[in-house]
Amino acid sequence: MERTLIKDLRPQMDQPVSLRGWIHNLKKFKEFAFVTLRDRSGLLQMILENEEILGGLRLEASVAVTGVLQANPRAPMGFELLIQEISILGEAKYELLPFAINGRQIDASLEKQLDHRTISLRRMDQRAIFKVQQEITQVFRDFLTGEGFTEIHTPKIIGIETEGGSDVFMLDYFGTRTFMAQSPQFYKQMMVGAGFERVFEIGAAYRAEPHSTWRHLNEYISLDLEMGFIENEEDLMDLEEGLIRAMIQHLKTAAGEALEILGVTLPEVGRIPRIPLSRAQEILLELFDKKSPVGNIDAEGEKLLAGHVKKEYDSDFVFLTKYPASKRPLYTMPDENLEGMTRSFDLIFKGLEITTGGQRIHDYDQLTASILKSGGRPEDFDFYLESFKYGMPPHGGLAIGLERITMMFLGLDNIRQATLVPRDLNRLKP
Amino acid sequence: MERTLIKDLRPQMDQPVSLRGWIHNLKKFKEFAFVTLRDRSGLLQMILENEEILGGLRLEASVAVTGVLQANPRAPMGFELLIQEISILGEAKYELLPFAINGRQIDASLEKQLDHRTISLRRMDQRAIFKVQQEITQVFRDFLTGEGFTEIHTPKIIGIETEGGSDVFMLDYFGTRTFMAQSPQFYKQMMVGAGFERVFEIGAAYRAEPHSTWRHLNEYISLDLEMGFIENEEDLMDLEEGLIRAMIQHLKTAAGEALEILGVTLPEVGRIPRIPLSRAQEILLELFDKKSPVGNIDAEGEKLLAGHVKKEYDSDFVFLTKYPASKRPLYTMPDENLEGMTRSFDLIFKGLEITTGGQRIHDYDQLTASILKSGGRPEDFDFYLESFKYGMPPHGGLAIGLERITMMFLGLDNIRQATLVPRDLNRLKP
Repeated sequence: MERTLIKDLRPQMDQPVSLRGWIHNLKKFKEFAFVTLRDRSGLLQMILENEEILGGLRLEASVAVTGVLQANPRAPMGFELLIQEISILGEAKYELLPFAINGRQIDASLEKQLDHRTISLRRMDQRAIFKVQQEITQVFRDFLTGEGFTEIHTPKIIGIETEGGSDVFMLDYFGTRTFMAQSPQFYKQMMVGAGFERVFEIGAAYRAEPHSTWRHLNEYISLDLEMGFIENEEDLMDLEEGLIRAMIQHLKTAAGEALEILGVTLPEVGRIPRIPLSRAQEILLELFDKKSPVGNIDAEGEKLLAGHVKKEYDSDFVFLTKYPASKRPLYTMPDENLEGMTRSFDLIFKGLEITTGGQRIHDYDQLTASILKSGGRPEDFDFYLESFKYGMPPHGGLAIGLERITMMFLGLDNIRQATLVPRDLNRLKP
Repeated sequence: MERTLIKDLRPQMDQPVSLRGWIHNLKKFKEFAFVTLRDRSGLLQMILENEEILGGLRLEASVAVTGVLQANPRAPMGFELLIQEISILGEAKYELLPFAINGRQIDASLEKQLDHRTISLRRMDQRAIFKVQQEITQVFRDFLTGEGFTEIHTPKIIGIETEGGSDVFMLDYFGTRTFMAQSPQFYKQMMVGAGFERVFEIGAAYRAEPHSTWRHLNEYISLDLEMGFIENEEDLMDLEEGLIRAMIQHLKTAAGEALEILGVTLPEVGRIPRIPLSRAQEILLELFDKKSPVGNIDAEGEKLLAGHVKKEYDSDFVFLTKYPASKRPLYTMPDENLEGMTRSFDLIFKGLEITTGGQRIHDYDQLTASILKSGGRPEDFDFYLESFKYGMPPHGGLAIGLERITMMFLGLDNIRQATLVPRDLNRLKP
């Protein structure tokens, strides 16, 4: 008999149905037992009257069930399944479950949940996070494809250090010292110049920063885009504003059920204010007597500013613009109208940065000079620089951390909750 | 003025239009010049009458152009653009182009083309390959999502060797020896068990095999899927048959233009024959007097068999099934009806393997025994094995190399042609 998913069951089904899933809960009474079946789509209350079978059932065993539906106004779905046959497909061979997953919530630390990821994810509310995440990548692709972007895949093993120095993971490549890419930055720029004009990549990025925080991972998925023939960084912010709006809109429909399970209401996205960093620092000083570090705003400042923007503009999002050159990578386009500043921006959502972006230098000589100024040697950037000899158009782009935006949209406390199998300073398993 | 793409130009446009792109070709005559503009969408013949401007133009500079369309029956599109204004956006600063890209084909070795990837990709026929590739990933996702699969992202840095021994790249992870994943095998199985039931991943895979061949890469994109609650490996072949059919169908429409540029006609996909390996070996011996290695078919044998299948079944595809356990990974499900054989398969397309798949062992004790039998230590597989204690359902999956299937569908000679920026034994740049 063809398998039916729990979510596709209808009370009027009067033929036997066949189901697959895991034993989510068992409650034994004198004459019968309630058995809750869980499949990827939901939970179903079932009635088992055969005591002999019941004896062989354990929580989390996977089973095949055949039975008939019968009305029961007190059952969660208004009906339940009277079990005719049940057979075990995958045996439960544990001594004790690491923690119960059929209660209101998991009574275990996040670390323990991550240690036993294949157990914690069995809860629908845990898997719902990744439904939302999947739809974030889906709308990212759909929106950009609609804007004429091409999806690319670029190598993560690279022969030179791209950005930063010590924060890279080293890899032995047939005896050569190589590094894991911190971002597809160079390659995505090169692909703009290679004639694709507009590209995006959804791929892994590696940061060997030796810290464990609630908002960082050492291996994460970066949603990257790069766009040629722009006027300036305003084009990028226009694009991202449209993207974020499309994202929220898409999630509300495509992941509506998951959002409901998670009890999350997504923000409205109107016009996102664009505030130069220096102005933001002034606001913090004027309104909150809060001093900021040179060329930046610290975590507390971002929070305060977010509150101000929410009050003033009714927006959960704010672009901070015009970061100083000293705080941005060497390829960042200087702003010719603002000495020392660049055509760059961060997107802050509820007080946390979710995007870094900006226009890039596209002139060969200007980029060479910028490499030299930063203390680098142009010959170390040979293959990257070469692309700029052949008419590289004005361009720029941005990157969004997938796990971080998932965490922020869902109001989670820790980025690991939005990561199936996280890698951090202390976590190499599972 | 809003930019128009070349492909969106219509002869009846009688207002000035604004274009962006690269100088693809220049032909100077006495009173004027033909300038060919190239953007991501196509080529356009333009007429430039201002000699002064012409002097500043070089091949491959990127430009902004304004002008009006005029009919010209001899122009490739039936019309051409009379340039009113042209300005350089990105200067050409090379001494000599590494090779010409505006001829009928590139007159340079593949290696040289890869050395200068941002030049070779400027040709539409090169970029067309990646349009096809993008649509392969698109239909992979769409088809599987339609079948209830969830897209996942799993870590590529792993604390244990998953498959094989010496063929892994080693990574220093904060002082700990780790490895780059050869496949998401363990994680995708775990995610099936974690309640997703059906998962797929499009991600990088790493093989440190020290050889350079026309069909291998050291870093490639793997299209992976894993499916729970299957009966046996036939379910997987059924799924893949549907997937391949959907793929070909989708490519014909979504990448029709790219296929035309590349001069490629995709095969029809009917019922794909399923032939046990041992029977295939017999066929080779009987029909071609061709001996095969134990438990396998060599490259020549695959070619011969493909020819036979084409003649006998009119199919470019064939599933080879029932590989011996000794030739398959330790997690492969033995076939209880065929001593020493497994519930595994390869999909061969025109004589080259494009998929490996099979049912996996789902019982904890059986898997432990298989690890021991293969000479492994169960404690090295602790986090993977743990998942099997909690009612792992019968499951299986398969993997398709993205670059390889792109190469094969397009009839390319070398897998590097289907890779934007390849990594092989000798190639770490660009």
